[in-house]
Amino acid sequence: MPTVAIIGGTGPEGRGLGLRLAMGGYPVIIGSREASRGADAAAALLEVRPGLPITGATNAEAASEADWVLLALPYDALNDTVGPLASAAEGKLVVSVVAPLVIEDGRFKPVALPQGSAAELVQALLPKSLVTSAFQNLSARDLLRPDRVLEGDVAVCGDDDEARKHTMEMARAVKDLRPVDAGPLANSRYVEDLTGLLLNLNRIHKGHATVRFLGI
Amino acid sequence: MPTVAIIGGTGPEGRGLGLRLAMGGYPVIIGSREASRGADAAAALLEVRPGLPITGATNAEAASEADWVLLALPYDALNDTVGPLASAAEGKLVVSVVAPLVIEDGRFKPVALPQGSAAELVQALLPKSLVTSAFQNLSARDLLRPDRVLEGDVAVCGDDDEARKHTMEMARAVKDLRPVDAGPLANSRYVEDLTGLLLNLNRIHKGHATVRFLGI
Repeated sequence: MPTVAIIGGTGPEGRGLGLRLAMGGYPVIIGSREASRGADAAAALLEVRPGLPITGATNAEAASEADWVLLALPYDALNDTVGPLASAAEGKLVVSVVAPLVIEDGRFKPVALPQGSAAELVQALLPKSLVTSAFQNLSARDLLRPDRVLEGDVAVCGDDDEARKHTMEMARAVKDLRPVDAGPLANSRYVEDLTGLLLNLNRIHKGHATVRFLGI
Repeated sequence: MPTVAIIGGTGPEGRGLGLRLAMGGYPVIIGSREASRGADAAAALLEVRPGLPITGATNAEAASEADWVLLALPYDALNDTVGPLASAAEGKLVVSVVAPLVIEDGRFKPVALPQGSAAELVQALLPKSLVTSAFQNLSARDLLRPDRVLEGDVAVCGDDDEARKHTMEMARAVKDLRPVDAGPLANSRYVEDLTGLLLNLNRIHKGHATVRFLGI
């Protein structure tokens, strides 16, 4: 199985995806700005599920050791954190889990990025990587509870067919999830926006919303 | 039951919603630029389900006779068609079913509106109406087949609590649909964008996608 680096992997979404991908059989490296924080996050996940193939490292080490790279970062950290990974991630699949949102007046608002979406910004920062986007619309809380049945679909966007296929494989390896081919990277704007809708629904309904596509 | 006018009601989405709302017990007036086209669309729906409370009229007549007004228009027809209805729709619930999208290079792209969403544009055009948005994400094809079980949720946005409640009532009256309170009108941007994602998924998967929210 390909090794997956999770850049910015110490937040709830990154840890949750790391846990679930490791449960799906992928060796996972939790990346952080500091190696010790990556190692701590890995150790905490191993307490949840001992024996899983999870380690910690700096973001740079994680990106260069891994076969595939997953970005679980706030959108405003992309320039500083992802730009320096360009050579480590060259030729590799890079999956953006980023949704560009801000909280204003008690609700999540979309942030307009000149590239159209966070995934397209990532592709601009990593021109020699194969960028896709996925996993933005899952509940971190549910991901982190390993016995919890996951509901919801994973819309996968990307311009490279092979990269999109690998990303769908990754989603399929997580129990209960269904990948949905959502076409080119430019469609990522829609999927990233959907995260904002779900987070706003969570505030209104005190839930942890996710989404399923019917009729396809 | 309140009478519902469907402005621009001769298109597939408008006719489909007219049929389903009439099946749910609402008297429906199908509005069109020309009275004869509204009457023809009403007659065609009565052939599908004889005896339903459906009539046709001009958009202006429909808006002034109805209690509630539903806008099933392309976004670029809003200024010309909705502006003139301001006095007929004064004080009334107005539901926008509009998603601002264009087809470019074989895919649906979102159109950035200065107001943020089509629903907010409608509110700007009809400052004395109670504007909500809903029903954008249903398949017109399924709406028009009266024996077809509808899947999917209806996200309802609006700033006025009563107006949002009435819109949710309307959605609940359509068999199989579930209304979901999606908060203020500014959230409509997310729901309108979702239409673009679903239409793009339809192109990729040759389906007729709709969406269900889980976990709330």
